[in-house]
Amino acid sequence: MTHETIRIGLLTVSDRASRGDYEDLGGPAMQAWFEKVLTSEWEALARVVPDEQDQVEQALKTLADDEGCCLIVTTGGTGPARRDITPEATEAVCDKILDGFGEQMRAVSLKFVPTAILSRQMAGIRGQSLIINLPGKPSAIDDCLNAVFPAVPYCIDLLEGPYLETDEAVMTAFRPKHAKKPA
Amino acid sequence: MTHETIRIGLLTVSDRASRGDYEDLGGPAMQAWFEKVLTSEWEALARVVPDEQDQVEQALKTLADDEGCCLIVTTGGTGPARRDITPEATEAVCDKILDGFGEQMRAVSLKFVPTAILSRQMAGIRGQSLIINLPGKPSAIDDCLNAVFPAVPYCIDLLEGPYLETDEAVMTAFRPKHAKKPA
Amino acid sequence: MTHETIRIGLLTVSDRASRGDYEDLGGPAMQAWFEKVLTSEWEALARVVPDEQDQVEQALKTLADDEGCCLIVTTGGTGPARRDITPEATEAVCDKILDGFGEQMRAVSLKFVPTAILSRQMAGIRGQSLIINLPGKPSAIDDCLNAVFPAVPYCIDLLEGPYLETDEAVMTAFRPKHAKKPA
Repeated sequence: MTHETIRIGLLTVSDRASRGDYEDLGGPAMQAWFEKVLTSEWEALARVVPDEQDQVEQALKTLADDEGCCLIVTTGGTGPARRDITPEATEAVCDKILDGFGEQMRAVSLKFVPTAILSRQMAGIRGQSLIINLPGKPSAIDDCLNAVFPAVPYCIDLLEGPYLETDEAVMTAFRPKHAKKPA
Repeated sequence: MTHETIRIGLLTVSDRASRGDYEDLGGPAMQAWFEKVLTSEWEALARVVPDEQDQVEQALKTLADDEGCCLIVTTGGTGPARRDITPEATEAVCDKILDGFGEQMRAVSLKFVPTAILSRQMAGIRGQSLIINLPGKPSAIDDCLNAVFPAVPYCIDLLEGPYLETDEAVMTAFRPKHAKKPA
Repeated sequence: MTHETIRIGLLTVSDRASRGDYEDLGGPAMQAWFEKVLTSEWEALARVVPDEQDQVEQALKTLADDEGCCLIVTTGGTGPARRDITPEATEAVCDKILDGFGEQMRAVSLKFVPTAILSRQMAGIRGQSLIINLPGKPSAIDDCLNAVFPAVPYCIDLLEGPYLETDEAVMTAFRPKHAKKPA
């Protein structure tokens, strides 16, 4: 069995963070979550871009196609405001959209705030990469990853990517029986 | 602080109501709901059009672009039948679709009737206007507005529209702390 | 009252089943479910095609337009993998998409497995035919049909199709009062 390195793209979409007017909190929050949950060896590729659709699309393409990230998570830019364009960029670069991720992330956020319905978070697949939009706020990032991540390792298996393993004390990745890792 | 008038478009989409074969019940039901809930001064712009996609699109564009409605609610035409085209017209004129509204309205209606899954109600943004599709039946209009309206005033804030206030005894509009109205 | 025969299309989408490498379990599971639930006389039109978008589209068109099926259910091909193209084919041939079906099927499956969010199952309308994507696994087919079928007979009424009746001891089809069958 080959030991491919697992690369995860962490993309912060924010005008202010990209100009340095504001410290990027979303990127480090996503990184801290994966450090806590994953036991597989992995490498973070962190990027920060402004809320410009072409720049978000380009960053997603590079992380997927050139850097070989099996998973790319974004933070920021999913609301209803004029400058929020992360979902548009995600949809433009993906081959398939997985509506269940957005539905479940909104359902979970709705337990905390009624404005969860304003979020346009989505997830999709580009080639062999799964892309997931997360909120901008660090505590909401954790809520959303806790809700959807149990399905992520098996999704990456289906895309013929690397085998992700988690610390079972923190989070169990769900795989059907036939998909368990061979000893 | 300027005191911009708050204008709300009430669009009834119905072949029979537009011909006068049938009394429009949806438009007045929407108006009564806002009268009960809003404490801000506001003005209703009520229109009735048949189930023709180009006429629905034109009415939405006029209410948004020329009449300056920050919010437009529609009633009727969201089912699966051949003449139901309100969602098609809504999608065609919007820049952004907010899937969370449709999801939550269907989830709420599903508590009453299993046929709630047949509804194609959606919401979206055109420029600075939020457009929300509501059902045709007056009691279902109330259920849907009760479910989604707590998120509407903050959505309109994010679109840089007027500051909507509600009667707290009837309904609390949710805004994050940083978005509270300055005294 | 005319007695139109009720025809239901059962479409299995599977490379392996279409080559005969694998017994088709999904098609017979769908047929068994309808045999258990429907009391109206009906006729099954079962087809098996590989995971090729043009062949799935062609089969859906033939079952809807030439064979006059008021309902077509598919099994297989709704996941995130490269060869999964059933939703793409469904969307391509439909006039209207009914998002509530996919939402509810995922919500129900989510009670069993967290990977339910990976499913891209949808439903839509082509002319007078309702098309519903079901999972590949027989037990999950039953869970999904149990969840959404109560809304199906009334949907077919709205499409001016035949009047479907169910065994009330097994499943009640919901119709608003004004839509009950005349005696």
